[in-house]
Amino acid sequence: MKNSILLITGLIFLLLSCSAETGVKESAYPRLSLSSTEATAIASNLNKLPILNESYQDLKNGTDKAIISDIDVPLPGESGGYAHERHKQNYRDMKNAGYMYTFTGEVAYAEFIKKMLDAYADLYPTLGPHPLSKKQKPGRLFHQVLNENVWLLNTAQAYDCIYEWLSPADREKYEKNIFMPMVTLISVDYPEEFDRIHNHGMWSTAAVGMIGLVMENNDLVNRALFGTENNGTGGYLAQVEGLFSPDGYYMEGAYYVRYAMRPLLFFAEALERSKPEFKIFEFKDQIIKKAFYSAVQMTYPNGAFIPINDASLSMDILAPGILFGTSVIFDRYGFDKNLLGLAKIQGAVYPNGSGLKLAQAYSEAAEVIEPTWSSIEFVDGDDGKQGGFGILRTGEGKDQTVLAMKYGVHGLGHGHFDKLHFMYFDQGSDVVPDYGFARWINIETKYGGRYLPENNTYAKQTIAHNTLVVDGKTQNYMKRKAAEKMHADRHYFEVDNPDIQVVSAKANGYYDGIDMQRTMFLINDERLDFPVVVDVYRVDADDTHEYDMPIHFHGQIMNTNFKYSTQTKVRKPLGKGHGYEHIWKTAEATVSKDASVTWLDGSRYYSYLTDVTGKSKMIFGMTGANDPNFNLRNEPVLMRRVKGEDMVFASVLEPHGYFNEARETSVGVHPDLQEITVLGHSNKATVLEITGKNDLTWTIMINNAEADTEQEHSVEFSGVKYTWQGNYKVSLN
Amino acid sequence: MKNSILLITGLIFLLLSCSAETGVKESAYPRLSLSSTEATAIASNLNKLPILNESYQDLKNGTDKAIISDIDVPLPGESGGYAHERHKQNYRDMKNAGYMYTFTGEVAYAEFIKKMLDAYADLYPTLGPHPLSKKQKPGRLFHQVLNENVWLLNTAQAYDCIYEWLSPADREKYEKNIFMPMVTLISVDYPEEFDRIHNHGMWSTAAVGMIGLVMENNDLVNRALFGTENNGTGGYLAQVEGLFSPDGYYMEGAYYVRYAMRPLLFFAEALERSKPEFKIFEFKDQIIKKAFYSAVQMTYPNGAFIPINDASLSMDILAPGILFGTSVIFDRYGFDKNLLGLAKIQGAVYPNGSGLKLAQAYSEAAEVIEPTWSSIEFVDGDDGKQGGFGILRTGEGKDQTVLAMKYGVHGLGHGHFDKLHFMYFDQGSDVVPDYGFARWINIETKYGGRYLPENNTYAKQTIAHNTLVVDGKTQNYMKRKAAEKMHADRHYFEVDNPDIQVVSAKANGYYDGIDMQRTMFLINDERLDFPVVVDVYRVDADDTHEYDMPIHFHGQIMNTNFKYSTQTKVRKPLGKGHGYEHIWKTAEATVSKDASVTWLDGSRYYSYLTDVTGKSKMIFGMTGANDPNFNLRNEPVLMRRVKGEDMVFASVLEPHGYFNEARETSVGVHPDLQEITVLGHSNKATVLEITGKNDLTWTIMINNAEADTEQEHSVEFSGVKYTWQGNYKVSLN
Repeated sequence: MKNSILLITGLIFLLLSCSAETGVKESAYPRLSLSSTEATAIASNLNKLPILNESYQDLKNGTDKAIISDIDVPLPGESGGYAHERHKQNYRDMKNAGYMYTFTGEVAYAEFIKKMLDAYADLYPTLGPHPLSKKQKPGRLFHQVLNENVWLLNTAQAYDCIYEWLSPADREKYEKNIFMPMVTLISVDYPEEFDRIHNHGMWSTAAVGMIGLVMENNDLVNRALFGTENNGTGGYLAQVEGLFSPDGYYMEGAYYVRYAMRPLLFFAEALERSKPEFKIFEFKDQIIKKAFYSAVQMTYPNGAFIPINDASLSMDILAPGILFGTSVIFDRYGFDKNLLGLAKIQGAVYPNGSGLKLAQAYSEAAEVIEPTWSSIEFVDGDDGKQGGFGILRTGEGKDQTVLAMKYGVHGLGHGHFDKLHFMYFDQGSDVVPDYGFARWINIETKYGGRYLPENNTYAKQTIAHNTLVVDGKTQNYMKRKAAEKMHADRHYFEVDNPDIQVVSAKANGYYDGIDMQRTMFLINDERLDFPVVVDVYRVDADDTHEYDMPIHFHGQIMNTNFKYSTQTKVRKPLGKGHGYEHIWKTAEATVSKDASVTWLDGSRYYSYLTDVTGKSKMIFGMTGANDPNFNLRNEPVLMRRVKGEDMVFASVLEPHGYFNEARETSVGVHPDLQEITVLGHSNKATVLEITGKNDLTWTIMINNAEADTEQEHSVEFSGVKYTWQGNYKVSLN
Repeated sequence: MKNSILLITGLIFLLLSCSAETGVKESAYPRLSLSSTEATAIASNLNKLPILNESYQDLKNGTDKAIISDIDVPLPGESGGYAHERHKQNYRDMKNAGYMYTFTGEVAYAEFIKKMLDAYADLYPTLGPHPLSKKQKPGRLFHQVLNENVWLLNTAQAYDCIYEWLSPADREKYEKNIFMPMVTLISVDYPEEFDRIHNHGMWSTAAVGMIGLVMENNDLVNRALFGTENNGTGGYLAQVEGLFSPDGYYMEGAYYVRYAMRPLLFFAEALERSKPEFKIFEFKDQIIKKAFYSAVQMTYPNGAFIPINDASLSMDILAPGILFGTSVIFDRYGFDKNLLGLAKIQGAVYPNGSGLKLAQAYSEAAEVIEPTWSSIEFVDGDDGKQGGFGILRTGEGKDQTVLAMKYGVHGLGHGHFDKLHFMYFDQGSDVVPDYGFARWINIETKYGGRYLPENNTYAKQTIAHNTLVVDGKTQNYMKRKAAEKMHADRHYFEVDNPDIQVVSAKANGYYDGIDMQRTMFLINDERLDFPVVVDVYRVDADDTHEYDMPIHFHGQIMNTNFKYSTQTKVRKPLGKGHGYEHIWKTAEATVSKDASVTWLDGSRYYSYLTDVTGKSKMIFGMTGANDPNFNLRNEPVLMRRVKGEDMVFASVLEPHGYFNEARETSVGVHPDLQEITVLGHSNKATVLEITGKNDLTWTIMINNAEADTEQEHSVEFSGVKYTWQGNYKVSLN
């Protein structure tokens, strides 16, 4: 954090001096995210730009409906309940009405906001801390202060839009009864929450900063930027510094970054408009641009965020922060056809000057296709040296196949114990999924929409992921503090050859005395139907352990190359803790040669072939055991269980064939790849051979020692010498 | 069958006399489903009609790829395996190449067919009966002769297209080595299969008839039309007569009708072209039109067929017979905007003269929307007096809500034991589903793609459906012969009031000594979010029984108004036979007042509220027990279990609220309807009251005696008198 403090200290002087010299810039209202000039330009372009027009009409229709409904500012209620949702809808409606007032000048919109603010001005002073908060800091309107931040950030924009229309007396009333008490709650009553480097802190600082800009209150703006102690150890800039790695990777993962993106970008945009001399969009080598691109590149081809840590599986680039960001980033950093592609999936632009520019480019483009992101690796930690997240991609636009591997830091309170976990997306869906969070968000009958107990007992556990479990225990033995002290390490990530892409990483010490390395390839061999995943997971242990290598999937088992015995008459949980208590054992087999399981998902078959020498068990399971309230989804999992010391788990995941039930067509139900042989492994290298139909033979050599793309390697296993240069060699014969 | 024989006998004279006077009409080839005049017209319209052009390009692209691939006519293999699929692809490729030859005159297409037929002419004479047939009559190329019929029906069209291009010697070779032996196999070796009134018979007769028309062999055409005995007791006309009720309802259900539709329509069209004097499209009061409309009205708003009996859940109106039919029916019976709507879902027209006309109308229409079918009741049995199938619909186009109830005949070997079963479709998917068949069609690793053992042990059983199970037994005690001797009875079906639609039916004697009546309403009350289903199931028994009333659903349990105890640590099957052995018991509750269960499916909540007086059990289950090979899907079911004699099971299914995980929005998780009270019931009437929030009170009076829309009813229960006119009265207060 040392560098950041120096950097921020410099900025403080810049800002303070700007303020001292020029005072707050005398711009007209609104000033936060939309100006009256922009509103005029948008109005005159609606007929020419369909995507803009549609976005505008959506805004107008929703707002017109809202302003004729009864205003309701209820007493606070439980999370996910009516009052909670009503207060959320109120700030959305107020903000939208503010925009519509700016677009049309129609007083009905302004009056709607005024009436609502009047009601809040009556209610807010009567409220104490919300009685139904659990572990969170209580707000007054909401059970957690986080929601109060969001309320303020939105309402500040509504206030901004009608500021000049309001009488001074009204302004004074709202500031005295609502805004200042709320600012005090957020930034004085909970200084540790305000200064904490966390998405909640980002919201707190942006909300206080934005109302400060409207109120022309420099104290608030400074507090927002530099923290409660005004020295840069807290505040918006410290958040931006601390929450993102130098290439923009957000340590809590994409589900939370889309949420953090909203205050990040709204306050940045507001700052740029009121204090352009601050050059916030240049801050820290354009970290805001990097953060945005990092976020949108963390998506699957359908626009959904790759779920990392506590994450919704359906959160996608239609999230408000990303929708706003697509327009703002396009405007502030320039043309990029992938941003047009995002707008295509979103089907909308943000209704301000930035969105107008994006809509113009969209309409001028000869063709707009969904974004084609490249393979990319994100480094993790604020120093960028704490592992990372690697994404291998092949194919175009929405037909891309994606293989992602996780090897970074723990990720604070939302972190999952899942180092070297992988996910695989194909045919438009998550074929090898992450479970996501155990939560039915905002559904009041499901524990008020909060995280469920099963989030800790299942979703965070290692077995809920696609990575090795040792002795039936979760990594770091489920101790968050231990996990936060460590991180996995990137080994190499090489994607120059589009037909053979590789990511390799290590996670040492996540189990006592055990080092682990996972190397995954995404291989295009034109003799096969589709790209294939090769997974080489090496374990270096100082003792004998029981290993479970799980792979979660969707769909139905179609075939195995071994006999299994199914739990036909009674089902019991797989184990007693560490997430195993939530998995029903459905079937089991003992295998002594390479095991293959084929399942059907969508219109494709997937065969998971895993190298077996000696005896192993193949165990089939289904989530949902020890789930008294039907909180968990019921999904299948397959795992190989074996006892050993040093081990290599070598597997391939091969998509093949085609099935269409409606057309009654099935071809290629059998995979081509048939056998995997690990020819040898050591701390220096792993060498394996994969064979298949029609004499297909792949030889794969993997560097396990220090990564180096030039180094010559030579190893000998069973009297055969293997030599290659660089981190790997793959021969497809 | 007497009437049909008279009718057909008349037709025989007509046909024989036509043949005698004019001989076979001397039209140019091709003559079955496309003419050279039509081909020219299509070619010159491609640029003007996008939907036609797309259909044509799909045909061209597929065929161009096929004709440059290696020709492979392999030795016969197992169902679903390579050889099986290859022979199927071969006839498709040949037929398509015939069409492309007719469109373009390019000899490469004709030569492709010739090479393929040469290979079949070599192979076919060497083959005996297929060794891998199970219960089916073996073909030679395929394990069942049914596939041989399909091969012939398609290949006849390919042959038709290149007939004039072929040398007489080639024609002789193909007829001698392939077509005549195949005809003999189909119509001489298996006369009982050929004459049997069944979709297989339809295929046999159409295939023989079509090759007969190409070969100008009147013997074959007559055999096809009138059966092996040439007297109308078998043959195509008897099939058409016997398989459809007078209003066109097909007794095996929609899954099979789309399959029967193909030979029905292809042979009809071929007949009309070669023998227009026969007026096949007028036959039996335009039964072909009725059969087609009946089939397409048996669909959900997404174009999928409502699954009845053994049925695929994904079979839809893109099926080749329906795609062909949409064009042909439009051409032969005239304009209908719902046919344009079908073409919209299909995204295609059939590439012949009929398809050209449909494409022209499609392009001239100001707007094309998905079809909006009306509520409709089909009567069942060839006399139309053996019960039926009622479909209630509300809403428009693809947003329709559909409630369907089944109360007809058993449906031959594919019949399910499920009288008074209901299905419910909302939001574009099957919210209260039918399980469909237990089969992974054409997947060779799943029992060769055939029906699985679980089709009999689960899918056909009563508990797999949404209808009452008595004493844990399947209707007719799972005896097909007993089931085929009976049918349920329609009681009334009234849909004139779009806000209160009703279907009522009775099934007596399906369990010894038990009469059952189910009356279902689809009710629009503007105070509620969505239309609501009211279900009143009355049982008149001569003794005490244990009743299970199951409702199958998708999605996740969100709430109940009672406490339940979940099988958290061990799961066991619900029972030992009649399908219960395939259901895991997941939870159970004892309830003594109205029970409500809310689940989430898609973006809507569904609450099932059921009237309880005295003690009942609420049992939750999940399919998949006793399933050693992972053949079954795992889906939840809920049932009320109660002991009683005469009973009324009164329930409502209320959709409500909105959930969007990606947008983190949940509203209205609690239902409005809260209590159901059966005020009284007897053989004359049932009266109930449903109450809900905001003093909502519905009073429903149902006539249980003879149906009559005019009759005045007056009943007294607990000293209160209820009077109404007609079959029902619903007061929404």
